[in-house]
Amino acid sequence: MFSKLSRGSRASEIRELLKLTEKKEVISFAGGLPNPQAFPFQDIKDIFNDQLEKNGPLMLQYGTTEGVTELRRAIAERMKKKGMKIDYTNVFITSGSQQCLDLVGKVFLDPGDIVIVSAPTYLGAANAFRSYGAVFESVPMDDDGMIPELLAEKLDQLQKHGQAPKLLYVEPSFHNPAGVSIPQNRREEIMRLARKYDIVVLEDSPYSELRFSNSGEPAKSLKAMDTDGRVIYTSTFSKVLAPGFRLAWCVAEGEILNKLIIVKQATDLCTNAVGQYVAAEYITKGYMDNHVKKIISLYEGKKNLMLAAMEKYFPEGTKWTKPEGGLFIWVTLPDYMDTRSMFGRAIKNKVAYVIGSAFFADKSGKNTMRLNYSYASDQEIEEGIKRLALTIKEEMVIQKPISEKKVKFDEEGFITGV
Amino acid sequence: MFSKLSRGSRASEIRELLKLTEKKEVISFAGGLPNPQAFPFQDIKDIFNDQLEKNGPLMLQYGTTEGVTELRRAIAERMKKKGMKIDYTNVFITSGSQQCLDLVGKVFLDPGDIVIVSAPTYLGAANAFRSYGAVFESVPMDDDGMIPELLAEKLDQLQKHGQAPKLLYVEPSFHNPAGVSIPQNRREEIMRLARKYDIVVLEDSPYSELRFSNSGEPAKSLKAMDTDGRVIYTSTFSKVLAPGFRLAWCVAEGEILNKLIIVKQATDLCTNAVGQYVAAEYITKGYMDNHVKKIISLYEGKKNLMLAAMEKYFPEGTKWTKPEGGLFIWVTLPDYMDTRSMFGRAIKNKVAYVIGSAFFADKSGKNTMRLNYSYASDQEIEEGIKRLALTIKEEMVIQKPISEKKVKFDEEGFITGV
Repeated sequence: MFSKLSRGSRASEIRELLKLTEKKEVISFAGGLPNPQAFPFQDIKDIFNDQLEKNGPLMLQYGTTEGVTELRRAIAERMKKKGMKIDYTNVFITSGSQQCLDLVGKVFLDPGDIVIVSAPTYLGAANAFRSYGAVFESVPMDDDGMIPELLAEKLDQLQKHGQAPKLLYVEPSFHNPAGVSIPQNRREEIMRLARKYDIVVLEDSPYSELRFSNSGEPAKSLKAMDTDGRVIYTSTFSKVLAPGFRLAWCVAEGEILNKLIIVKQATDLCTNAVGQYVAAEYITKGYMDNHVKKIISLYEGKKNLMLAAMEKYFPEGTKWTKPEGGLFIWVTLPDYMDTRSMFGRAIKNKVAYVIGSAFFADKSGKNTMRLNYSYASDQEIEEGIKRLALTIKEEMVIQKPISEKKVKFDEEGFITGV
Repeated sequence: MFSKLSRGSRASEIRELLKLTEKKEVISFAGGLPNPQAFPFQDIKDIFNDQLEKNGPLMLQYGTTEGVTELRRAIAERMKKKGMKIDYTNVFITSGSQQCLDLVGKVFLDPGDIVIVSAPTYLGAANAFRSYGAVFESVPMDDDGMIPELLAEKLDQLQKHGQAPKLLYVEPSFHNPAGVSIPQNRREEIMRLARKYDIVVLEDSPYSELRFSNSGEPAKSLKAMDTDGRVIYTSTFSKVLAPGFRLAWCVAEGEILNKLIIVKQATDLCTNAVGQYVAAEYITKGYMDNHVKKIISLYEGKKNLMLAAMEKYFPEGTKWTKPEGGLFIWVTLPDYMDTRSMFGRAIKNKVAYVIGSAFFADKSGKNTMRLNYSYASDQEIEEGIKRLALTIKEEMVIQKPISEKKVKFDEEGFITGV
C-alpha cells in the first residue's frame, strides 16, 4: 500500500526518547529550543496589530509561493551585507528551514544518490534526504569542523568508483550537533573541492547570527564565496525571532532557484503570510540587530554557566567543545562508553541529552552526546550538569572494561571497590 | 543534476497566465481567493493578543508535528458532529491542505502508480501527486459529480489489466473546479467500490462548510461512512477563517496516520503554532459557526449576482453549473470553442478566468472554464460577466466552423455579417 520510500520510514528513535524527557521532573538538555526569554513578545504584539491594521487583507490572504516581497527584500539586504552577490529575487521564503532541506531533497535526489555529510551531522537534514532515498558518505570533523583533506579523499575515492555525489551538506557556523565552526581557509578549500568535483553545496546556517563576544571575525558564508551558483543557502527566523511562525528563507540562483520554487508550490502553495508581514516589519523597523544582541548575551551566559559546571562536575576522561556561538555543546566520553545504554540511567537521575550516535549517518559516535544550553534556566543548568556528571560516573563504573578498572580486592579475593 | 521527477516539473502554464490577471484593470474570476470581507479581523486581533498573553511561550515556540492539542480536540469535536468515529489523536494539523495532498502523495505513490481522479479535478492535487510520478485515470462527472457507473467500469478495466490503483481522489462537496456535489446514494456507491477494489480514498473537503441556503440536507462525509480506515479526510481553515495562517487538518487512522505524521516531520517539523493557538481559541469561543454563516451569506449573494449576470449576458449555446456552495461556477461553451485560445481576447477585454482544460488530467475540456465569484466586488461581477460575455460572443464568431455559421452575404457575394 505504501510507497517504497515511506515503507522504510518509522518514528525516529530520538523522537521516542525525547518523549521521556518531557516529564516535569527531568531537566532536559536534549531539545534544541530557543529560550522563550528570547522572544520579543511586546514587539511582536505591536507589529502584529499594526500590520493587521495596515496590510490585513494581504496578511490574512494566500500569498505567492516565493513569499512576501517586503520580506524578501529585507532579507536580501541582510544577505548582501554577508557578501552574497544576489538580489531579492534570489530569496524565497520557506515554512521553516526544514522545508528548504526537504525541497532540496526533492529537487535533487533519486533513490541511491549520494549526499556527503559531516560526521556527526544534523538529524533533520539526514531525515529529509533519506526520505528521498539518499545514501550518505560521512566526512569526519575536528574542532574546526569538516576536514577538507578527508573530504578530498572521499571525493577522490568516489570518483575512482565512478560515483558522483549529488549534494554536499555543510553547516559551517556553530554546527548542530557539534557546536564548532569552520575557519575561512577550510571554507575556501571546501568550495574549491565543490567546484573541482562539480557538486551542489547546501549551506545550512541557522545559528550564524548567534555569535558570542570575543569570537573574532566571522568567516565568510559559503554562498558569499560562490562563483557559479552552486551554493544553496538557508537560514531561519526560528533562532532570532521565534520558531512559532515557521519562517525561514532560502537563497539560490538560476534553474536551481526555479525548481525549488516550483516544487514548493506543489508542497504547500505558500508560507504563512501572517508571519511574513510580522518578520518583514521587524527587520525594516531595525529591531532585529538589537534583539539578536540580547539573545547572544542570554545564551552566552548560559553557555558559560554550563561549561563552568561541566568543568566542576564532569569526571576525568570526558571532553567537550567550547562553542563560539549557537545552541549546543558536544561531549565525548571515553571510547568504551555508550551514551545510548547510559540514557535510562540519565532519565532515572532526571536529566536528559541527545544520544550522539543519532547524528552519525554511519552509526558511529556511540560515546558522544549533544547538550543544549539555550532552553534550561540557570538553576537547571547547574543542577542538570551535576545530575549528568553523576550519571556518567555511575555508568563509567559499569561500562569500563575490566582491564581498565582499578579494582580493589579484600584479603579473600572478593571485589570491594573500583 | 536534478532528480528524475523534478526534471519534468516546470512552472504551471496556469501560474503564468494568472500573472496576466494581476493587472489592475483586469477583473479576475480566475483565482480561488476568499474575499477579505470574510476575514474576521477584529476577532483575530483580539484572540491573537489574548493568546499571546496567555500562551505566548508555547505559541511562539516549536510545537509537535501532530499539532497543538487544543486545536486537534476542537477539530475532532466538529468532525464527530459530521459522523466521523474518531478522537483527537486521529487529527493532525497541516500547513494548508495542499500539504496533506503532498504528504499523501509521498506516503503512497511510487512513480507509475495510478491515482483515480474526476475529470475535471483540482489542479493542486494533480500537481502534488504528479510530483511523485503518479499517472492519472479520469472518471467523468455530471451535475451530481463523479459517476459511479463509470468509476466501476474504470476499476474493472484496470483490474482486468492487472493494475491496482493506489488512490481514489474525491472532492464530494462543492467540487473545485466544477462546483457540483455528490449526492448520498452516489457516495455510498463510491465507498462500496473503494472497499471492493481495496483502494485508499482521499476525501478533499475544503468547502463543505460553505453550504448555501435551500440546498437541502448535506450528504455524509465519506470519512463518516468509512468502516475500515481507508478514508483520509482533509479540510482547511483557509475558507472559513483566513488562508494567511496556512492551517488545515487531516483525519486518518492506524498505520496511515502514523506514516503521514512521520513524513510530515521530515517535511517541515511542525505547522506554525501562532495560527494554531488563534484557530483553537476561535473555535473554542464558539465564533466559527456564526462566522461561517456570514461568509455563506456573502458568497451566496455574489453567486446569485454572477448567475443573474450570466443569464442576462451570456450567448445562446453556453451553459453553467448552479452551485449549492463553494466558490466556483463551471462554464461549458459550445463544443467547437477553445477557452485557451480565447484567453488573450479576454485579457484584452480586461476579464480573466481559468482555462478549463488545466483541470483535466487527460487534457480534455477545451471548451470549459472556471469562474470564481467569492473574490470580486459586486460591481466587478456585473461588469466582468458583461466583458466575458462579449469575449465569448466575439470568439464564437471566429471559432465557429464555417459549416455552423449563419453567414449573410451582400449582393456581390461578400460576407457582411454572421
